[in-house]
Amino acid sequence: MSTNVEPAIIVHGGAVVFPGDKKDKASEGTKKAASKGYHVLTKGGSALDAVQAAICVLEDNPAFDAGTGSPLTSEGDIEMDAVIMDGRTLNTGAVAAVKNVKNPIVLARMVMDQTQHCLLVGQGANKFADEQNVPKEPNENLITEENKEKLEKYKNSYGEAAENDFSARDHDTVGAVAIDKEGNIAFGTSTGGITNKRPGRVGDSPIAGIGGYADNNVGGISCTGHGESITRVALAYDIISLMKYSNKSTQEAADYALAKMKEKLRNAKANLEAGVIGIGKDGNPVYSFKTKQMAWAWAKNGKLHNGVNFGENNTYTITTDANGEYKFDKDE
Amino acid sequence: MSTNVEPAIIVHGGAVVFPGDKKDKASEGTKKAASKGYHVLTKGGSALDAVQAAICVLEDNPAFDAGTGSPLTSEGDIEMDAVIMDGRTLNTGAVAAVKNVKNPIVLARMVMDQTQHCLLVGQGANKFADEQNVPKEPNENLITEENKEKLEKYKNSYGEAAENDFSARDHDTVGAVAIDKEGNIAFGTSTGGITNKRPGRVGDSPIAGIGGYADNNVGGISCTGHGESITRVALAYDIISLMKYSNKSTQEAADYALAKMKEKLRNAKANLEAGVIGIGKDGNPVYSFKTKQMAWAWAKNGKLHNGVNFGENNTYTITTDANGEYKFDKDE
Repeated sequence: MSTNVEPAIIVHGGAVVFPGDKKDKASEGTKKAASKGYHVLTKGGSALDAVQAAICVLEDNPAFDAGTGSPLTSEGDIEMDAVIMDGRTLNTGAVAAVKNVKNPIVLARMVMDQTQHCLLVGQGANKFADEQNVPKEPNENLITEENKEKLEKYKNSYGEAAENDFSARDHDTVGAVAIDKEGNIAFGTSTGGITNKRPGRVGDSPIAGIGGYADNNVGGISCTGHGESITRVALAYDIISLMKYSNKSTQEAADYALAKMKEKLRNAKANLEAGVIGIGKDGNPVYSFKTKQMAWAWAKNGKLHNGVNFGENNTYTITTDANGEYKFDKDE
Repeated sequence: MSTNVEPAIIVHGGAVVFPGDKKDKASEGTKKAASKGYHVLTKGGSALDAVQAAICVLEDNPAFDAGTGSPLTSEGDIEMDAVIMDGRTLNTGAVAAVKNVKNPIVLARMVMDQTQHCLLVGQGANKFADEQNVPKEPNENLITEENKEKLEKYKNSYGEAAENDFSARDHDTVGAVAIDKEGNIAFGTSTGGITNKRPGRVGDSPIAGIGGYADNNVGGISCTGHGESITRVALAYDIISLMKYSNKSTQEAADYALAKMKEKLRNAKANLEAGVIGIGKDGNPVYSFKTKQMAWAWAKNGKLHNGVNFGENNTYTITTDANGEYKFDKDE
């Protein structure tokens, strides 16, 4: 095992067009999440712990489509999906269509650590949460007014049926990829899915190999975007394979796979775009997106980098104030 | 699109050691399923229809771990998973942890054809089945005496907890890959999972990209074996990637990925073996397994090939008797 690797973390808050003040909220939210995860890493914490800590921050922020702030199903309920993966062992844990959990990523970690399974869905996932004494989070804490209005708007625009145009729909899933000082790589992804989705609908997010992947010998990837389109092209493992079998860099592999995605899906039901973040075994964080915006932030060598619009890339020095809150001083 | 491709189908009935007379039943069952699918293809049917027809035969045969004959969860219930994928469009449909459905593969096809989604799980999958007027199959029709005894045996051996050694457990998932005369490739996989699994546990089987994949430009794959191990290495898409990015033949890619699986999982919680079937865009059916046995059968050019033990490979001429039942005349 390599040691004294420079630790790094990258997070995303969805590939989407952020309406109104959501762009600023998403930008600020990803900066805080990356800083939290980076803090775990610089204290000597593992990539797994950093990914989990960063995703908890994103899940608890109602600006993002995961945990608190998840969009509503066609029945007005919240069903969440999350996955975490350890690139050292290839162990992974995930939950899908789970209800009334504040931090699905923590439950996914429990599936990995406490069971022989990789994925628990629906009522079975909730039974497991009960067994693990995970507190039940009432829907009123998870549902935002904004998402109630969004469901109503979709129902008015498209009718009751869940079968309609998803292209306008938000998909601001969250995710993180980290590498720790021992060179261990981990990824995690968490989502509440898509407004007006059918109950039980699962996209790419909680699926190791599809919504993300982590392998110390290659790198880590987390995807965001239209779940069904990402599923159809096995996006995460496609990128991992391009790195592994075609000797592409993380950036080249991510750019290539996203470009090919549109071509591959030309005959598919939907052909919607996506974004990815990743860290290769070289330790370099990268991002790539075909959407107009993706909220991303990464931290390494004491610096934070962040952007939302295409081409936007700000650099900050992270400090903490007297209350331990992160502050970001923008570099000139 | 190419035309006048020689149609072919390959099926599997699980990578496992078949106890007692189950080997013969599995052998006979895969022969019948491949013949049924091949019949669809020779009548001009699509690869998708052939895969679906073959898997229905396997699901209805209690000798296999899918549909009727599914093993029981730790609660004595049956929860089934299935997926189907169209290699022409990359559209896919799947269900997971669905109950009281006779043919999960048919429901997976409905998800693909009737919804905008790729995967429906748990109660949501059953709600969709109700909407589509799929008849409710009572558990007493799906549960076999053998599987009741098996659950009891596991509970007695390992206690109530679902956390125990899965290595001795059966994983005789079923699957099929076909290529039709237009060169379209499809795959499907169906399973009842593992005896004493937690409710809500989902393995690789219903996950496009993990338990199988189909892309006309590369080929089709269906996996069987220990679901969590297959998930951790994204086995199906790993094979597809080796074909696509490393120019390996279907056989080379399958053999290589299975050999690497053990090495990759050396630090994982479980490191169990698997088998795969596939058809490349060259139209040649292949199989590979690291288990002691895998029930497989393939049909092409009017001939049926079949085996269970390592190295076993019988060739038959398929005929039908007066009642339309398939008969197999073994070639010398």
